[in-house]
Amino acid sequence: MCGVFGVFGHKQASSLVYLGLYALQHRGEESAGIASFDGRKVRFHKGMGLVSDVFDAKIIKSLRGEISLGHNRYSTTGVSSAKNIQPFLARHRGRHILIAHNGNLTNTFFLRKDLEEKGSIFQTTMDSEIIAHLLAHSDLDSQSAIVEALSKLEGAYSLVLLIDGELIGARDSYGFRPLCLGKLDSSYILASETCALDLIGASYIRDIEPGEILFIGKDGLKSIKLPEKKKHSFCIFEFIYFARPDSDIFGANVYLTRKSLGRQLAREFPLSTDIVMPIPDSGNYAAMGFAEESGIPLEVGMIRNHYVGRTFIQPSQMVRNFRVKVKLNPIKRVLKDKRVVIIEDSIVRGTTSKIRVKTLREAGVKEVHMRVSCPPLRWPCYYGIDFPTKKELIASSHSIEWIRDFIGLDSLNYLSLEGMLKAMLIPPENFCTACFTGNYPTAVPKRFSKNLLENL
Amino acid sequence: MCGVFGVFGHKQASSLVYLGLYALQHRGEESAGIASFDGRKVRFHKGMGLVSDVFDAKIIKSLRGEISLGHNRYSTTGVSSAKNIQPFLARHRGRHILIAHNGNLTNTFFLRKDLEEKGSIFQTTMDSEIIAHLLAHSDLDSQSAIVEALSKLEGAYSLVLLIDGELIGARDSYGFRPLCLGKLDSSYILASETCALDLIGASYIRDIEPGEILFIGKDGLKSIKLPEKKKHSFCIFEFIYFARPDSDIFGANVYLTRKSLGRQLAREFPLSTDIVMPIPDSGNYAAMGFAEESGIPLEVGMIRNHYVGRTFIQPSQMVRNFRVKVKLNPIKRVLKDKRVVIIEDSIVRGTTSKIRVKTLREAGVKEVHMRVSCPPLRWPCYYGIDFPTKKELIASSHSIEWIRDFIGLDSLNYLSLEGMLKAMLIPPENFCTACFTGNYPTAVPKRFSKNLLENL
Amino acid sequence: MCGVFGVFGHKQASSLVYLGLYALQHRGEESAGIASFDGRKVRFHKGMGLVSDVFDAKIIKSLRGEISLGHNRYSTTGVSSAKNIQPFLARHRGRHILIAHNGNLTNTFFLRKDLEEKGSIFQTTMDSEIIAHLLAHSDLDSQSAIVEALSKLEGAYSLVLLIDGELIGARDSYGFRPLCLGKLDSSYILASETCALDLIGASYIRDIEPGEILFIGKDGLKSIKLPEKKKHSFCIFEFIYFARPDSDIFGANVYLTRKSLGRQLAREFPLSTDIVMPIPDSGNYAAMGFAEESGIPLEVGMIRNHYVGRTFIQPSQMVRNFRVKVKLNPIKRVLKDKRVVIIEDSIVRGTTSKIRVKTLREAGVKEVHMRVSCPPLRWPCYYGIDFPTKKELIASSHSIEWIRDFIGLDSLNYLSLEGMLKAMLIPPENFCTACFTGNYPTAVPKRFSKNLLENL
Amino acid sequence: MCGVFGVFGHKQASSLVYLGLYALQHRGEESAGIASFDGRKVRFHKGMGLVSDVFDAKIIKSLRGEISLGHNRYSTTGVSSAKNIQPFLARHRGRHILIAHNGNLTNTFFLRKDLEEKGSIFQTTMDSEIIAHLLAHSDLDSQSAIVEALSKLEGAYSLVLLIDGELIGARDSYGFRPLCLGKLDSSYILASETCALDLIGASYIRDIEPGEILFIGKDGLKSIKLPEKKKHSFCIFEFIYFARPDSDIFGANVYLTRKSLGRQLAREFPLSTDIVMPIPDSGNYAAMGFAEESGIPLEVGMIRNHYVGRTFIQPSQMVRNFRVKVKLNPIKRVLKDKRVVIIEDSIVRGTTSKIRVKTLREAGVKEVHMRVSCPPLRWPCYYGIDFPTKKELIASSHSIEWIRDFIGLDSLNYLSLEGMLKAMLIPPENFCTACFTGNYPTAVPKRFSKNLLENL
Repeated sequence: MCGVFGVFGHKQASSLVYLGLYALQHRGEESAGIASFDGRKVRFHKGMGLVSDVFDAKIIKSLRGEISLGHNRYSTTGVSSAKNIQPFLARHRGRHILIAHNGNLTNTFFLRKDLEEKGSIFQTTMDSEIIAHLLAHSDLDSQSAIVEALSKLEGAYSLVLLIDGELIGARDSYGFRPLCLGKLDSSYILASETCALDLIGASYIRDIEPGEILFIGKDGLKSIKLPEKKKHSFCIFEFIYFARPDSDIFGANVYLTRKSLGRQLAREFPLSTDIVMPIPDSGNYAAMGFAEESGIPLEVGMIRNHYVGRTFIQPSQMVRNFRVKVKLNPIKRVLKDKRVVIIEDSIVRGTTSKIRVKTLREAGVKEVHMRVSCPPLRWPCYYGIDFPTKKELIASSHSIEWIRDFIGLDSLNYLSLEGMLKAMLIPPENFCTACFTGNYPTAVPKRFSKNLLENL
Repeated sequence: MCGVFGVFGHKQASSLVYLGLYALQHRGEESAGIASFDGRKVRFHKGMGLVSDVFDAKIIKSLRGEISLGHNRYSTTGVSSAKNIQPFLARHRGRHILIAHNGNLTNTFFLRKDLEEKGSIFQTTMDSEIIAHLLAHSDLDSQSAIVEALSKLEGAYSLVLLIDGELIGARDSYGFRPLCLGKLDSSYILASETCALDLIGASYIRDIEPGEILFIGKDGLKSIKLPEKKKHSFCIFEFIYFARPDSDIFGANVYLTRKSLGRQLAREFPLSTDIVMPIPDSGNYAAMGFAEESGIPLEVGMIRNHYVGRTFIQPSQMVRNFRVKVKLNPIKRVLKDKRVVIIEDSIVRGTTSKIRVKTLREAGVKEVHMRVSCPPLRWPCYYGIDFPTKKELIASSHSIEWIRDFIGLDSLNYLSLEGMLKAMLIPPENFCTACFTGNYPTAVPKRFSKNLLENL
Repeated sequence: MCGVFGVFGHKQASSLVYLGLYALQHRGEESAGIASFDGRKVRFHKGMGLVSDVFDAKIIKSLRGEISLGHNRYSTTGVSSAKNIQPFLARHRGRHILIAHNGNLTNTFFLRKDLEEKGSIFQTTMDSEIIAHLLAHSDLDSQSAIVEALSKLEGAYSLVLLIDGELIGARDSYGFRPLCLGKLDSSYILASETCALDLIGASYIRDIEPGEILFIGKDGLKSIKLPEKKKHSFCIFEFIYFARPDSDIFGANVYLTRKSLGRQLAREFPLSTDIVMPIPDSGNYAAMGFAEESGIPLEVGMIRNHYVGRTFIQPSQMVRNFRVKVKLNPIKRVLKDKRVVIIEDSIVRGTTSKIRVKTLREAGVKEVHMRVSCPPLRWPCYYGIDFPTKKELIASSHSIEWIRDFIGLDSLNYLSLEGMLKAMLIPPENFCTACFTGNYPTAVPKRFSKNLLENL
Repeated sequence: MCGVFGVFGHKQASSLVYLGLYALQHRGEESAGIASFDGRKVRFHKGMGLVSDVFDAKIIKSLRGEISLGHNRYSTTGVSSAKNIQPFLARHRGRHILIAHNGNLTNTFFLRKDLEEKGSIFQTTMDSEIIAHLLAHSDLDSQSAIVEALSKLEGAYSLVLLIDGELIGARDSYGFRPLCLGKLDSSYILASETCALDLIGASYIRDIEPGEILFIGKDGLKSIKLPEKKKHSFCIFEFIYFARPDSDIFGANVYLTRKSLGRQLAREFPLSTDIVMPIPDSGNYAAMGFAEESGIPLEVGMIRNHYVGRTFIQPSQMVRNFRVKVKLNPIKRVLKDKRVVIIEDSIVRGTTSKIRVKTLREAGVKEVHMRVSCPPLRWPCYYGIDFPTKKELIASSHSIEWIRDFIGLDSLNYLSLEGMLKAMLIPPENFCTACFTGNYPTAVPKRFSKNLLENL
């Protein structure tokens, strides 16, 4: 879970990157970094926290130059620490290599072991650093060295690189993560999602294709394709939960897809209740689709506190169900004696849902039904979504009936795999559905841990 | 615009006050303060910023004692500075006087002048300080002195006081601002809105009545009424904009009132468009009522960025319509070629609406109509709502047609005064509507400025 | 223990005050404050800590105006807290009263009680605040009101005031604390010590006389004398320990006085050792005088660490005699097998000396003799020097022999009272020697505590 | 200019390192770092600023383990930045390499170029990093690899390393910089100077010898000597200026050496003045020796402000000779109409002396003579002392007469080279005197810049 953004050929390149990262903040809240290049010198700033906490106007102004790239991070491989903030910067023989990476590699362990035996010293535990060492050991020219290095990588990557004065966008052959190309006046933009283009007023040109390496330089664009072709494996969970609703990714709009999932859910599991309500904000749009299709009135039964997210003192045992209450306050005058169906986008551990349902019952709700706009989550993701371990995914070891009783529902239904694919607004054969099915498009590590490289 | 909260008789009194202020954060984001009393000593902490920024667990723990009160402030009288953060604390002859005040007094100038001539030195420019000096000059017993002091005040006040080991709730005879009494186990709670009772799990008992002074002490409750009775003048703008939707104030729920306003709006000004959409979040609930009543489909045409509110670099002229975009991103695939009616809760200056409408047109909307869920705002508030000056209120000097053209709408309609009062869920004769009509329930200062006392 | 400084009629008045306070830093390290007046508005900044920590260039620049005054504080009356930082500022009937006070009043309790009964609310626990309330209750013109107010004060005060556009210097009738007048171009300066004049390049004019109130205004200087005359009671401890060696106070130089005390000490108690050494830095100058007079070679036996004073982790029990070692490191090659006489300026509790002597013995010193350049300290000071309580003053309850054994010395001698007075470079009858003799020049409070006003 | 310190086998190892660095603070004020090893894990903390600013008790407590090392830095090679703070840490094949380096290498450029061509990526611009890469490319066992790597280095190094659970002390074959071994109970200590042993109560065992590599492990000490022997080249400037006076280095005490230099100075250039005075604090001890030998009375003519060094606002042109005054205030009553000889340890640019002499003359001094306790500084140092460039060294391009007139002296004399060596308390043939003579013991880079590696 990361966001990447790059700009080539704009006088305020680092300001644009700042805005791009701001629009992509939902893809990674842990740390942020921006680097710029003015033709001679690389400038760099990074820090733990939100984009708006890490940067200020003075810092952005100091990041001079017409090429810039940035990264929002939510740690997948590599522990959470200041050292591991991207973009990764290496200097070698007087040139700079800058790497911003969204996704997760699956053959990191072997590549790194091999490089260390050749005398390489690694600075970080990020899998992205491997790319720099592969380049440092290559005797080829710059572009060929990049193609050679990326050919050795397995797994998921949407990359923005800055090497030898060129901005480079690259996407693995499966296309797990999104990456698009935009244009603002005469500048080129690379972004994880189109919402970042919208914010800076750039127009969308096209997606970087799976297996494509796009070099953006003074002489324009040059596209090279990696030799090996793979079946497309777009991450379907980007649509269900991760991407911003106002973005178009993989060729479809996220908001409209979520409404479509809600409508399909109403068709698969019709029921009769007094009201349909979302759990704000995760199920909002699926709930709207569900209400439209079912004809049940949509009602806001719980109000979200706008100030949640701010650091907060935990009053431990003093207040019952505090964690729910501080985010969501049920309106008794709306809920009392009602039969309610609540719409969720997904269930991970089930513990949050359990408390929310309890809070609804305490507010006087008569019946609580739940409909989930995707199938049960049962398998870990090796391609960059930071699910908990398989053991913690409630659906990987429990039946739907067990989960229904655990959460305390009158009924529970998940959207079917077929229904989910049918509701998609682009051809269904393009998706990776491994988290629901366990059918991984690549070989996956036997022992997997996001801190694997810490112990090398 | 302030929030007040008090607790009597709870071992974790200051923790509860912290949570209460957190729930009332929307009533004042500028500063926050909490004081506690353990029977012998007053402890105090305050600072500029949000409740969660001003306090941490260690500070709350240090605020010992079973009585505590707190205040969120958005400056009305008195300039914005650390010195003016409430609760106000005075020591006099070995006793403590603590004052948390929501509202605005209208005879401050004369009371203060008189006290200074008697030798009083004022520490702040807050009108609330006057209460302490009135008490210091009185020879009566404590409760009588309080009744005497409050009798001299004119204007709006909902007060929480801590004097001589008693927690005191008081509300002016008009009842401009809300104040309610709750109970948690054997503790009594005073709060501006019921949402603060909900968060700590307290039950609602009743509102403090207009003109009531409620003393909460070891021997229970004692209620004294101010001699002079006034016609109730509840602030109707609390329902339209200011209070939290999940609160009940003045005897009705805010969310349901807003939906009711939206329904009335649809009845008064029917029209035919493809979709109805709110400007998030201000018009959300009125839009839902409007959609229900009109049958026009509700659509989320603009997505709100969750990270807005964080400190942010202004990219000046680089990005067009940036201020709107950073908060709200229109979804082109939803809006293109549509006829849209947008629902607003109120229009103050009109400048924000103007830019939003422009953004919608750039996203391809064919027609933009606006419906506002209250009448035109034309008069300043002397009772605690921080409107801009009369000159800045667009409707005080321009016709509706002029405003429609200024904002760039195809049509614009405001809810009628009669319609607004009719849509209320409590009897309409109880409200102050001075901001719409100019009919002030009290005498008002001829020259009014919130910094008036700065120059004394 | 405080430093005061004021400037009248200079374009960079607050910069000069900053420098003046910097030069007077030794008089109070706890807090600092500076106020300025530009003819219309008072500006103010203050904080806990050293002058250089509390202020920066931006703050000083913002303190506009040609009149300015400042204060360094080491708490005497009034607890140590941000609220009690001086200068004290009161606003009353549109005018400003600013007070910077060095010294300690002895009739605070009664004055304050009386004022509270008249309805005054005190903001702080500083005795200086009383002056403002006395002025607020007066009906006289400004200058007469000041004379009237100061007449009511008992005890020690060297004051710098800013009232009605005039800078005022005042000193109690005994003259306990120093205060001098200087000139820089056409500006007048008030300062606790001449070293502050030196730093800004101002010339010394004269001391403010005991009982004098000097008004510095647009029309020049106007001096008023308090009616009651007292015998001079200059604090002799300013010479022995407190004032800076490069200052002239009460008409004599501090460094030369300390050398003179050392020479007198050598005359009173001759002995034969291998070396004489100071404990840096307190006994440096007396040791030089002692060496000159006695002919014993001066040697630096312990080196002072320049970085001491910085916040420091205490390694508790891990390192023996750590507190001494971290400040002073004995040089074994200098000390081994030597007979040493060490010179101290004074002994308060004796505990520090004890450890230092132990450290010297561990470094191989054969004999350790100590000579102290003042008589035994036996009585508390009510006039502004923050000695510990009488109980903690080692000499108030123990004989010199007992102290010698407690510290672990081979011999110990204190300078005689007569010797001390004889060594002074100004007439000896002008001094307060109460801390040595218990002969207080004024009535003193029976129960005295520096936190007395906290409980009012 | 750096300080290094290491501890092997103590339960509070990192606390001791903290204290050691504190005692060595004068060797580098720019940054500080401490690393610890508990047998399995390396922990690390570092930051810009003084030791006491970079660390607090909580941090030190978190640096667990019985082996620890630390570093104070004043940048020589490598720009001043957080990235370049030592100790340098590299991980390679699961093991940690930690390096703390005092001194400066002279063949960095070639070693680094060679390593980069083999694919190494450097993280910093510190010459010390080269050691880690040399180790990573070696196939030998750990101890042999270290001997091999150090054999390739040219220039000055006193190193403390932590590799494979062993603490290693190493000193180049010339012995430019000091490094000593101490013992505290059963723990071994490595330190730049003995004053750091004193502070923690450790006993001095011996110096690490030139060309020695001392491995301290579980099985005790193992000493290996580098094959190539060199003529000793102890830095004489450590005695003159750099080391702490209470330290013994290279076998002699620094304080006693400085007094000896002062005595030699009095013998070489006898004169008759009223007083001899040091410029505090640099010439203090030479002045004492000078006074003893010459019989001229020692007087403190200028008082040093204890608070200097704190961040400070520059009052630009407002105060004449401000920079001197803020540090040193001349006592007019001591200096007026006197003939004075001032003792300096060295003259670098001469500008500071010029202003000080001017200040003395303004205080009324009749004659000012200066004696300097070393010969003229004429050549840059390539071994770790951060002199300005040759151009800025006043004596490298001007005669003594010119310097005398520039500073404004009545007479000026430098100690002779022979006199300086004669005054040393250890055999004179052991010293590097290149900064006075230009006779460098090693080959030196033709183009030398401390930021050389920045442009690689």
